[in-house]
Amino acid sequence: MHDALRIDCDALTLFLTNMFRRLGMAVGNAEICADDIVLTNLWGIDSHGVLRLPIYAQRLRKNVIKGNPNIRLLADAGAMRILDGDAGMGFLVGHHAMSHAIELAERCGIGAVSVTNSNHFGAASLYTSQAARAGYMAIAMTNVQPNLVAPGGSRPITGNNPIAFGAPTRLGFPFLLDISMSTVAGGKLHLAIEKGERIPLGWATDGKGCPTEDPTAALEGYLLPLGGHKGFGLSLVVDLLCGVINGGAFQHQIRSMYAKPNDSSGTGHMMIALNPGLLLDENSYFDRMDQFYCTIKSSPLSNSDAKMYLPGEIEHETRERRRAEGIPLPSTLLEKINGLASQLNVAPLAATGRC
Amino acid sequence: MHDALRIDCDALTLFLTNMFRRLGMAVGNAEICADDIVLTNLWGIDSHGVLRLPIYAQRLRKNVIKGNPNIRLLADAGAMRILDGDAGMGFLVGHHAMSHAIELAERCGIGAVSVTNSNHFGAASLYTSQAARAGYMAIAMTNVQPNLVAPGGSRPITGNNPIAFGAPTRLGFPFLLDISMSTVAGGKLHLAIEKGERIPLGWATDGKGCPTEDPTAALEGYLLPLGGHKGFGLSLVVDLLCGVINGGAFQHQIRSMYAKPNDSSGTGHMMIALNPGLLLDENSYFDRMDQFYCTIKSSPLSNSDAKMYLPGEIEHETRERRRAEGIPLPSTLLEKINGLASQLNVAPLAATGRC
Repeated sequence: MHDALRIDCDALTLFLTNMFRRLGMAVGNAEICADDIVLTNLWGIDSHGVLRLPIYAQRLRKNVIKGNPNIRLLADAGAMRILDGDAGMGFLVGHHAMSHAIELAERCGIGAVSVTNSNHFGAASLYTSQAARAGYMAIAMTNVQPNLVAPGGSRPITGNNPIAFGAPTRLGFPFLLDISMSTVAGGKLHLAIEKGERIPLGWATDGKGCPTEDPTAALEGYLLPLGGHKGFGLSLVVDLLCGVINGGAFQHQIRSMYAKPNDSSGTGHMMIALNPGLLLDENSYFDRMDQFYCTIKSSPLSNSDAKMYLPGEIEHETRERRRAEGIPLPSTLLEKINGLASQLNVAPLAATGRC
Repeated sequence: MHDALRIDCDALTLFLTNMFRRLGMAVGNAEICADDIVLTNLWGIDSHGVLRLPIYAQRLRKNVIKGNPNIRLLADAGAMRILDGDAGMGFLVGHHAMSHAIELAERCGIGAVSVTNSNHFGAASLYTSQAARAGYMAIAMTNVQPNLVAPGGSRPITGNNPIAFGAPTRLGFPFLLDISMSTVAGGKLHLAIEKGERIPLGWATDGKGCPTEDPTAALEGYLLPLGGHKGFGLSLVVDLLCGVINGGAFQHQIRSMYAKPNDSSGTGHMMIALNPGLLLDENSYFDRMDQFYCTIKSSPLSNSDAKMYLPGEIEHETRERRRAEGIPLPSTLLEKINGLASQLNVAPLAATGRC
C-alpha cells in the first residue's frame, strides 16, 4: 500500500462511533456500525471497511439511508419472516434480520429472514459471524445492482451477489466463507493495470461484452461470473431469495449507492440460521468439526513451503496482527475522513505510525 | 454419440420399473426410481441416467443398498428434521426427505431436512423439481467421496458436492440450476483427449496435484474446484450440512459406489424448501418471476446468432425433443442392460431406431 498509516483499532472504533452519533444515530446503532467497519478492516477485507465511510456519511446526512430505521415485520410463518428494512443503514438491518433468524432457529431448528428495502450491508460474513458467535450455522446473502454479464451476454443483468457461510468451531474463529459471484473482484483489474499484466479470459469483458485479456479494456466492460453459467445461476438464486420472494427490488431496480447517491438502494438480504445441535450435543458437534478441519489441515500441498488455510483462518490471523500492529489506512483516505470529521465537529483520527 | 440407438421414453420407464421390481422393490418404489432415471435422460443429463443402472442393480442385488428402506426420523425441531436413510436407494431417500421439507415449509415457511446413511441420489435437480411442482422453492445438495483438491493441494479432501436450486414459474418448466463444485465434469477430460486438445489450467491437476493443461495427465490427477477457493469453500459447506451436523459420514468416510461396490456409501443429503407465498399471492409471485425472466431473455448477446437460455430451458427443450424422438442410448449400454434384464427374467428393451 502506498503511503499507508497505522491506525489503532480501538481509536478507530471510538472515532467511527462519534461520527455515526453526529450523523444522527442512536448510540447503540452507532456502535454496531462502528464495530462492523472495524471488524471488516481487522479481517483484511479493506474494500468493505472504512473506505466506505465517505459514501455512508454522505447518504446518512441527506437522510437517504436512515441511521435509526424502524424495521417492520411484513410476514411471519413460524420459521420464516419477511422484514421491511425502512431504507435503513445496511449493517443495522442485516444484524436485526440475523437476530430474527437465530431466534427462529432456536425454536424451530432453522430460521429464514428475507429483508427488503435495505442498503449496502458491508461484508456478508459480519452476519454469519454473528450467528456463529451465538452457536448457529448461518447463510447470509445480499443482492446488488447488476454488474455481471451472463456467459455470452453483452450487458449486465445480475449482480455479483455475495454469499457467506459461517459455523461455530472450537478454534478462536468460526468457519468463514464469503464469496461474490464474479470470478474476481473489480480491484484485480486495477492491480493488473498497475503491474502491466494481461488478465486471464474469464475475468471480464470489454465494453461490447467480449471476453478480454486486456485489463484496461475490461475497465470499460463488465465482470464475468465465477465458473460461467454456475456463478451466473447462483447469482440469480441470490436475487430470487433477496428480491423476488419478499416483494422487494431485484435486478435493475436496485440502485448503486455510487451511481445513485441520493436514492435508497432498495437492497434485499436473506439470512438463514441453522441449529447444529438438533441431534448432536455440543461436544460431539465440535469433535466432528475438529475432525473435519484436521482432514483439511493435514492434507499435503503441491508446494511444500505453502500453508493450507482453513476457511476464516486468514481473516483470523490478519485480525490478530492488525489488533497488535494497527490497521493500515492510505494517508489520502485518512485525510478525507478527517475532513468529514471536522465538518461534523468530531475530533480527528490520529495515526500511530507509518506502515 | 457413436452408434447410438433411440429408445422410447415410456418403454424405458416400463423396462426400468420391471427391472427394479425384479430387484426386489415394492411397485411404488420401483416407479419412483424408474421415473427419476428417465426424467434425467430426458433432460439430457445422461451421466446420471440409465448409464448408472448396472451399478445400481449390482448393489441392489447384493442388498448393499436397500430397495425398500425403512427411513427413520432421528430428530425434529419443528422446521428442521434429521432422517436416517437406512442405506436406501438414493432416489427414494431423496424424495422422502424433500417431501418432509415441503411439509415443514407448508407449515412454517421454510423446512430443512438433513439425511444421513443414504446413497447416490442421481441428479440433485430431481428433488428441487419435485418441490417446484408442489409450488415451493428448494435447495438440494449431497456430499460425495473426496475427488477435488484444494487450490494448492495435492490430494483430494472434499467432493465436487453438487447444489441444485429450483423455483416454480408460469412457464412449462421450473427454474433449474444443478451445479457441481468442480470447474468441469470429469467427462470433459475424456472429450479433450478424444479431440486432441489441451485443457485450460484450472480444470484439473496431474497425479502430483500440479495444475496441468494435459488432459491425459489430468486423468491421473484430480479435478480442481470452481473458481479456486470459492468452489472449494462451497464444497465444504455442502459436506457440513450433509454430513457433519446430522451425525453422518463426511469427507473420506463416504464410499464411492464404484470403488467400494459392496459398501453402502453413507452419503448425506440436505433438502430445504421455501414457501414463495409468504407475502405474495400466487399471481404476484408469478408476475415477478415473469419480469425476472424477461430481463434475462431480453438481454443482448455479444454474438447475435446465439440464444440466451433461462435456467432449466435447455433441459426443457431437450425433454420435449427426446419425448418425441426418443432417448439416445449407446448400443453398448443397451446390450449391457439387456444382459442384466435377461438374468432377471425381464423382457429386453428394444430400440425404435438409430440416431
